[in-house]
Amino acid sequence: MPLINISIPKGKSPEYVKAIADGVNSAVLTTLEGFPPDDRYQIIHEHQSYELEYQTRLGDRVMLYLIMRSGQKPEAKKAFYRKVVENLARSPGIDPANVLITIAENHDIDWSFSGGVAQFVQ
Amino acid sequence: MPLINISIPKGKSPEYVKAIADGVNSAVLTTLEGFPPDDRYQIIHEHQSYELEYQTRLGDRVMLYLIMRSGQKPEAKKAFYRKVVENLARSPGIDPANVLITIAENHDIDWSFSGGVAQFVQ
Amino acid sequence: MPLINISIPKGKSPEYVKAIADGVNSAVLTTLEGFPPDDRYQIIHEHQSYELEYQTRLGDRVMLYLIMRSGQKPEAKKAFYRKVVENLARSPGIDPANVLITIAENHDIDWSFSGGVAQFVQ
Repeated sequence: MPLINISIPKGKSPEYVKAIADGVNSAVLTTLEGFPPDDRYQIIHEHQSYELEYQTRLGDRVMLYLIMRSGQKPEAKKAFYRKVVENLARSPGIDPANVLITIAENHDIDWSFSGGVAQFVQ
Repeated sequence: MPLINISIPKGKSPEYVKAIADGVNSAVLTTLEGFPPDDRYQIIHEHQSYELEYQTRLGDRVMLYLIMRSGQKPEAKKAFYRKVVENLARSPGIDPANVLITIAENHDIDWSFSGGVAQFVQ
Repeated sequence: MPLINISIPKGKSPEYVKAIADGVNSAVLTTLEGFPPDDRYQIIHEHQSYELEYQTRLGDRVMLYLIMRSGQKPEAKKAFYRKVVENLARSPGIDPANVLITIAENHDIDWSFSGGVAQFVQ
């Protein structure tokens, strides 16, 4: 947890993609509660520039959609948002104005991380 | 708001993609409440035809998934569905039978549109 | 229902993709309640290997995200998870350890399957 969908413009290097994924993952681990260090589940989607409609932005931009269990405190979510843009500004150098984040929540029973087992409700 | 994921078959022109994105955006602005005109957040995904399983449909088709704050009235959602298919039938000419729409809702705290700030709960 | 997003590594054959989609669909129909046999709505996403961060896994892997109406019983969800990995192990041969599944729920009003109509609340 969480499962994070990350959408970015097409054509970036693996290193650029990795920097974004790492920065988001680090923000999860340092601001949200209860996630072990190896708890990384990320899906990166690449799109043509005209397929990422983010108001009128045309430059490098990141649109993030997280699914996670409910229970994170509002202050933790706020800290997460701040840390994501801080990390991505440092590397790979994304303007904080060009990062959108939204979260959808679910429940213990809604997760199977491996082996077809519902790990939170065994 | 909302964040809209739009999945379509691969290989369309930018103009076709733009017509779909514009038609969906126009439907949001004319039927749902409380969205300013520049409130556009859309991610278009392209897929091989065999990667868009929509019952037995094989022609042009659109699968839409929205994330938005709870609070829209049932009648507004119904009007939105009607307007999306109406707009897409006009341009780029999608059969209304070939449009799927689903919505997942979240809350004020679950959005950061820019700058790492939770704009709805400042 | 449900709408299922399936993310896999890029470069597989259409037959491989089809086996995954079929296995997931079969699991839906045999374990979850109330879905007619033709109720198939799946979106397959392909990614570079470095764009599917699933802890440290590097081999064939599948990350599944479902959106469906609330109401499925916990035991049905557990049976679904088990059946998905069982089906995918048989064909196309995915290690059950390499399958992640998560579910987000919504409501009757949140679906339009065709024609701009909210089929569940007419």
